[in-house]
Amino acid sequence: MVLFLHKNYIKETEMSKKILVIGGSASGPKAAARARRLDFHADITIIQKAHDLSMASCGYPYYVGGFFDNRNQLLCTPTGVVRDPSYFMKSKNINAITDTEVTSINRDAKTVEAKNLVTGEKHTYEYDKLILAMGATPKMPPVPGIDLKGITTLQSMPDADYLRKVRDEGKIKKAVVVGGGLIGIETCEALQLAGIKITVIEMLPQILMFLDWQLAKILENHVKSHAADVVTDNAVSAFLGDENGQLTAVKLANGDEIPCEMAVVAIGVTPNIKIAQEAGIKIGDCRGIMVDTYMQTNDPDIYAVGDCTEIPHRLSGTNVHAPYGDLANLQGRVAGENAAVGNVVEFPGTIQTGVCKVFEFSAGSTGLSRTSAEKLGYKNIETVTTSGPDRPGFMGAKILINRMIADADTGKLLGFECIGLGDASKQIGMAAMAIMGGMTIDQLVNADLPYAPPFSLAIDNILACAHALQNKLRGIMEGLSAVELYNKLAKGEKPFIIDCRSPDEWEEMRLGIGEHLIPVGGLRDRLNELPEDKSTEIVTYCKISLRGYEAARTLIANGFTNVKVMEGGIMAWPYHREK
Amino acid sequence: MVLFLHKNYIKETEMSKKILVIGGSASGPKAAARARRLDFHADITIIQKAHDLSMASCGYPYYVGGFFDNRNQLLCTPTGVVRDPSYFMKSKNINAITDTEVTSINRDAKTVEAKNLVTGEKHTYEYDKLILAMGATPKMPPVPGIDLKGITTLQSMPDADYLRKVRDEGKIKKAVVVGGGLIGIETCEALQLAGIKITVIEMLPQILMFLDWQLAKILENHVKSHAADVVTDNAVSAFLGDENGQLTAVKLANGDEIPCEMAVVAIGVTPNIKIAQEAGIKIGDCRGIMVDTYMQTNDPDIYAVGDCTEIPHRLSGTNVHAPYGDLANLQGRVAGENAAVGNVVEFPGTIQTGVCKVFEFSAGSTGLSRTSAEKLGYKNIETVTTSGPDRPGFMGAKILINRMIADADTGKLLGFECIGLGDASKQIGMAAMAIMGGMTIDQLVNADLPYAPPFSLAIDNILACAHALQNKLRGIMEGLSAVELYNKLAKGEKPFIIDCRSPDEWEEMRLGIGEHLIPVGGLRDRLNELPEDKSTEIVTYCKISLRGYEAARTLIANGFTNVKVMEGGIMAWPYHREK
Repeated sequence: MVLFLHKNYIKETEMSKKILVIGGSASGPKAAARARRLDFHADITIIQKAHDLSMASCGYPYYVGGFFDNRNQLLCTPTGVVRDPSYFMKSKNINAITDTEVTSINRDAKTVEAKNLVTGEKHTYEYDKLILAMGATPKMPPVPGIDLKGITTLQSMPDADYLRKVRDEGKIKKAVVVGGGLIGIETCEALQLAGIKITVIEMLPQILMFLDWQLAKILENHVKSHAADVVTDNAVSAFLGDENGQLTAVKLANGDEIPCEMAVVAIGVTPNIKIAQEAGIKIGDCRGIMVDTYMQTNDPDIYAVGDCTEIPHRLSGTNVHAPYGDLANLQGRVAGENAAVGNVVEFPGTIQTGVCKVFEFSAGSTGLSRTSAEKLGYKNIETVTTSGPDRPGFMGAKILINRMIADADTGKLLGFECIGLGDASKQIGMAAMAIMGGMTIDQLVNADLPYAPPFSLAIDNILACAHALQNKLRGIMEGLSAVELYNKLAKGEKPFIIDCRSPDEWEEMRLGIGEHLIPVGGLRDRLNELPEDKSTEIVTYCKISLRGYEAARTLIANGFTNVKVMEGGIMAWPYHREK
Repeated sequence: MVLFLHKNYIKETEMSKKILVIGGSASGPKAAARARRLDFHADITIIQKAHDLSMASCGYPYYVGGFFDNRNQLLCTPTGVVRDPSYFMKSKNINAITDTEVTSINRDAKTVEAKNLVTGEKHTYEYDKLILAMGATPKMPPVPGIDLKGITTLQSMPDADYLRKVRDEGKIKKAVVVGGGLIGIETCEALQLAGIKITVIEMLPQILMFLDWQLAKILENHVKSHAADVVTDNAVSAFLGDENGQLTAVKLANGDEIPCEMAVVAIGVTPNIKIAQEAGIKIGDCRGIMVDTYMQTNDPDIYAVGDCTEIPHRLSGTNVHAPYGDLANLQGRVAGENAAVGNVVEFPGTIQTGVCKVFEFSAGSTGLSRTSAEKLGYKNIETVTTSGPDRPGFMGAKILINRMIADADTGKLLGFECIGLGDASKQIGMAAMAIMGGMTIDQLVNADLPYAPPFSLAIDNILACAHALQNKLRGIMEGLSAVELYNKLAKGEKPFIIDCRSPDEWEEMRLGIGEHLIPVGGLRDRLNELPEDKSTEIVTYCKISLRGYEAARTLIANGFTNVKVMEGGIMAWPYHREK
């Protein structure tokens, strides 16, 4: 619960408190700045291991990819001032010490030991309140050859500088990205735009685990359409090199070898907890520093924020490691205030909202996936996949493909995923607010959203998805995913499949899975072409399956008892098409 | 409360019910289509006065403005099929009768009388359930000359055809748009893009009443920067014409005459209620048909939807007339289902969410303005105006200017307005969800939103606004709007004003209102330049007033007791600047 304070807030806390922040990337500087605004007289110091401060690290892939050329844009304020120690001192009266690693915390003495990485000098810093913002370190696969030259990550400013140099020099022709997560895919785009032939290697059955397999597969198809290759379900077993210790190829678990001159590893990060753990600060199940809602550790004088912590998932209550720049900033704001004036504000946790750009696609998710909801013990989960334009055709409609997840027992919206050529971040932002507001699908279907043709549809894309999910929840529509249909066919099942589009559309594009072309407008007159046994499984679809849904309603009304709509239609079909 | 139904839903309602819909634009066809999906055997008829059906009427300005050239795009499905009577019959088994006006409703006989506007033929139609979707009619100012040739509206397909012809012919050089509301401003843009010199006349002190005056003024400046003129606080007193009855000028209340060859009137619409009222259907205080949450009128066999109704504002409970295409569709979905299967679903009303495009700007609002909140009796309202980029500078940041309104007693978010070069519809969509979810500012400040540099900031634009409002609510920041400062200066008050930017920025752009340039970084060392009397009113600002806020915190910490931040900084200044 936040306290309401009167405007002389600061005066009550006027004591020359020493606030020490370990880490100067995202959450650390934010905490320091917030503390400064609330306590003008505090002695505030940031100790940063790297040379740079306040780096916009989520921007690295765009610098590498050539979206902009001035590296200082990653380090400067909106008005172009680089956030270096002199900026911190002059503008915020914060002492920022760079190139310095904290080696230990002495909780009894309330000091930390630090070592200047350039001079080797050691120094002891005192604190009244300590804020740990030590970030995370890229994981590296424990395989032979990991130390070869040409293997890097994209997690630091020097990494970004190195990869930008690779781009600018244009010598490297082939590279492998190890890991198909968010950073791996962003790196893939960046390097492909740099003219390098890329192969992404992902150990799991799909890229971008925050998406359902089907949506991830559609995205994978989009990546491949840009001449970047993606290999899933296959891990790196070794990095191979030449006599000079230079990487020459990546060897996979299945024995394949992919020749390459460079590999970028992006298989996730591990919270930097060593000095905290050694000092007796509690570490959680996700190997992050444990904090309460005040961002306070088990030591009341020590707070922790950002990628080195673990935080509660708001929908489950269980902790997760959520290394996102936006959450780091919000946590920094909370810890900075609490360290400065006592515990007054709280951080409620995450719903794991994220988004990324993947060539012309954007892709994001918020809340729970079906899998994560199942793990949490939800017994009665309903989902729907839909496709649809983001705005009217006459204003240049772009496709979006959604997946919405609800708890059928309470009707609550649990999760939402979105990919496509339209702006997924807008849809995800709206869904995130709806989830945090505890909205049910029945509330969502009548949401009053902004409508004008340059921006949206009269029934907004996310509402169309909610309408479909409500129809499923209420038994008005029975759905089947493209994956379920594909697997049925693979098993030799023979549902009667109807493509409900027009002959013209069929000529242009079609699945070729044994479907019958019966345009929805002609269906009522062609019921005699359907199986006589009304319990035969029938699957209907169209381009986005709105007509598929209409056809299903017609069939049900005519006594067919096993009619399913292939959700999302052809636009959500992740497999090869005949045409 | 929505009932959950099993999948044979339709069978229980299998009776050949006659559902008659009066009106075929937006809510009528939606109601008919929903009814059809839920009752295959019903006899469903739409009677439409106009020649066209299911027109995307919100798209008219973009057709007129040349965003696309094929008028059928306003009338067709996403796959290009025109929604004419044959489409409705073939695709949905709905009988759509066009060019036909319903002249009376006989509730006892459960019939309506209608007249074919082409042949003059009359016909009686029976109904079991009647859905009124008769729309609204443009208001016309009751002034001399209103019948002159050259005066039109932009509310119908023939209007759109006419204005598109005007564009294509290129003969008309000057036109007046009467009314600076949403449609007026969209029409202004469309005609200006058609090469016509436009003057917008607005009776009220500002255009776009859904915005605060300050934001509306900034938008007005943007309109004027496109060589379209805007006159506020001035009404049309007469339309002047020549001997042929052709419009030649518009005369204003202040005596000014504006020569023009065409005038487009856009001063709002009046619900079409005549036949309903004559039949004893209850009309509300907003002159719309009264409905309950089932969209049912006082006659249980008659529903009403769309622009002819009035609906509750969700935050006030009082009725409003909300003629928006998106709400019409949602209402149609509810009424169509209830008419088909009995009252099972409800429509909760509006929070008056809207957005529009105005040249390069977008502008929107959701929820309550300060004025409307005051009218509803909120006693303790807090607002904030902020400016800021929509994404990092290195990804092509665009400015957004926001206004957030909260109830200080409960902390609840009441309203949000946004204008700028960025996508206001995204911010408004997120705010609308937050309002509908009942979120407080304390909840909003830690919202977990999608972040990636191509789309957003680590602290999303809307969150930065919530942070500022939270700071105000908690007494950490005292704010002052540009309007309040301007009025103070006009009254001869002399606050000590500090521009906290750098000298370079000052050279490039400045207000010139007697401010002192003291960059925030130098403020601590220049406190001696400030008034000796620490109770002197001091106003700080910068480009967006983030540095202004930092400066204010510094001054408060140094004992100044009357320090205010000019909210939103120079970017939110609606008046003339020195430079």
